[in-house]
Amino acid sequence: MLVVSRDRYPAGELDRANERIDLQFDPPMRTLRLVGELRAALEPARRTGRTIGLVPTMGALHAGHLSLIAAARAQCDVVVMSLFVNPAQFDERVDLDRYPRREHEDGELAERAGVDLLFAPAPEEVYPPGFSTSVEVRGLTDRLEGEVRGRAHFNGVTTVVCKLLNMVAPDVAYFGQKDAQQLTVIRRLVADLNLTVRIAACPTVRESDGLAMSSRNAHLSPEERTRAPALHHALAAADAAVSEGERSADALLERARETLRRAGVEPEYVALVDPCKLEPIARLEQPALLALAARVGSTRLIDNAILEPSPSASEQCHPSPAAVAG
Amino acid sequence: MLVVSRDRYPAGELDRANERIDLQFDPPMRTLRLVGELRAALEPARRTGRTIGLVPTMGALHAGHLSLIAAARAQCDVVVMSLFVNPAQFDERVDLDRYPRREHEDGELAERAGVDLLFAPAPEEVYPPGFSTSVEVRGLTDRLEGEVRGRAHFNGVTTVVCKLLNMVAPDVAYFGQKDAQQLTVIRRLVADLNLTVRIAACPTVRESDGLAMSSRNAHLSPEERTRAPALHHALAAADAAVSEGERSADALLERARETLRRAGVEPEYVALVDPCKLEPIARLEQPALLALAARVGSTRLIDNAILEPSPSASEQCHPSPAAVAG
Repeated sequence: MLVVSRDRYPAGELDRANERIDLQFDPPMRTLRLVGELRAALEPARRTGRTIGLVPTMGALHAGHLSLIAAARAQCDVVVMSLFVNPAQFDERVDLDRYPRREHEDGELAERAGVDLLFAPAPEEVYPPGFSTSVEVRGLTDRLEGEVRGRAHFNGVTTVVCKLLNMVAPDVAYFGQKDAQQLTVIRRLVADLNLTVRIAACPTVRESDGLAMSSRNAHLSPEERTRAPALHHALAAADAAVSEGERSADALLERARETLRRAGVEPEYVALVDPCKLEPIARLEQPALLALAARVGSTRLIDNAILEPSPSASEQCHPSPAAVAG
Repeated sequence: MLVVSRDRYPAGELDRANERIDLQFDPPMRTLRLVGELRAALEPARRTGRTIGLVPTMGALHAGHLSLIAAARAQCDVVVMSLFVNPAQFDERVDLDRYPRREHEDGELAERAGVDLLFAPAPEEVYPPGFSTSVEVRGLTDRLEGEVRGRAHFNGVTTVVCKLLNMVAPDVAYFGQKDAQQLTVIRRLVADLNLTVRIAACPTVRESDGLAMSSRNAHLSPEERTRAPALHHALAAADAAVSEGERSADALLERARETLRRAGVEPEYVALVDPCKLEPIARLEQPALLALAARVGSTRLIDNAILEPSPSASEQCHPSPAAVAG
């Protein structure tokens, strides 16, 4: 594998071929709109065995996204960030319409964080006329978010993620643990369709008061913002109960619900499930996913934690880049 | 791109690296059961930029399959044939149960035809426990075969083809024009999911009396076998009517139906459709797909032809290998 340092170096110190290859990904970041351009830009890196990391985003970047970019930058030779507000995964038109769009600022943040290629296609590039294909993960998508948001949400996610993975053909793709169910569904998709990408999960990044970073936090009023950390507090309360020896799912869920109730936040769901199958569990005997969703005002927020009956690392973000490219 | 002749050459005339790479695909053909083995076997070829051709089959090879292998052999450096009787695409259990299985003979035919790697996975390798994903092409799959065989048939085809394309990651995949709707659906799938494979269509291969080659022909009784060419005759009758100037779809369809009727063959459908959208057309103004299906005894047969209002080549099988590997 050809590994070329991204540090600047005096001209002439590397042979011409390496120099030409490396210069392609020097700053400034390039912004690409077409799949064909993207593939052409990645081809030299792929041909020379350099690893490619993909950070799929819908823009409105916050510190959570930046942590994904940082992980990709640390682990891969080339970092691609996609920015596409995917209409197919919005179950509410109003949510799509008011989803924050600020590509210029996002581009500046991405470049500073070390993105080499920003892929920001128009909707027609992703879904051209005649588009007819849907990728669906059954079972896992019926529960939790799927139950509230409807089947179309996850079908939109799995279809666009499958497309982005095929467009970029990365060695590693980075997703946030905050969208825990999405992560489980995407891991299933990748395994089931024999994609060769490695899926890396990065820990949820939080505000200082525990609120999980989310592009939707921007919609919270000042009063709502004071109540929003209740989601994190509910997870923490359940986690504390586990530390005290509680293992009953009913008791743990009640602890979380009570915390939300006291903060004046009504949950859409609070569930303790197997992290791979997303099926409810009755007792905490293995690490389990405590997932919750609530509306604070008109803004829908989600959060989750891995509860562990015995202490160990609860979240993972240490993939090694996959050796096999698609 | 490194292109190494497959001809035998005196040892020592090529440098060591090329020799080692080439020897891997000398006869005898290798039979592989696991996706991991397959990827490992293909990795050196992929790394050195050699083109890979895939011929997906369900076994029971006949001259039609051999023509696909011959096209792949002529156009690609490495030829992979998959042999997998995909349970998910059989709408009738009895059809699955009686589908001819003769892997040993198929292997010998494949090797003689020039296949380098025979990939013959067990059902559990393709659909391991927990498998939950489905790839669906909407619209195109509702008509013709989809209408008769039900939605599950094409979902089974598109899901397994998507998997096979990801397992092998070929530059070109070869399909027969005989399954015209399948070909249209797979082209749509590949475009919609941004797969980088090129889909090559090869002309239908026929017995001397015109019957399209099919693994299911083996089920025909001697009496049924004498009636089976009626499908081809019906297509030929419609084509003759076009040559005489007929352009009305109703008239062309009636000509085909009449031919079937006279041979004592009752069609399931006879349809004249747009070759890309598969929507019925009223008049032949562009090349159109005349597709039909009929049961002869208990055996279901299909056939098709491209009808052209002005004479030109009606079937294509001249892809150039795709330059971009996934």
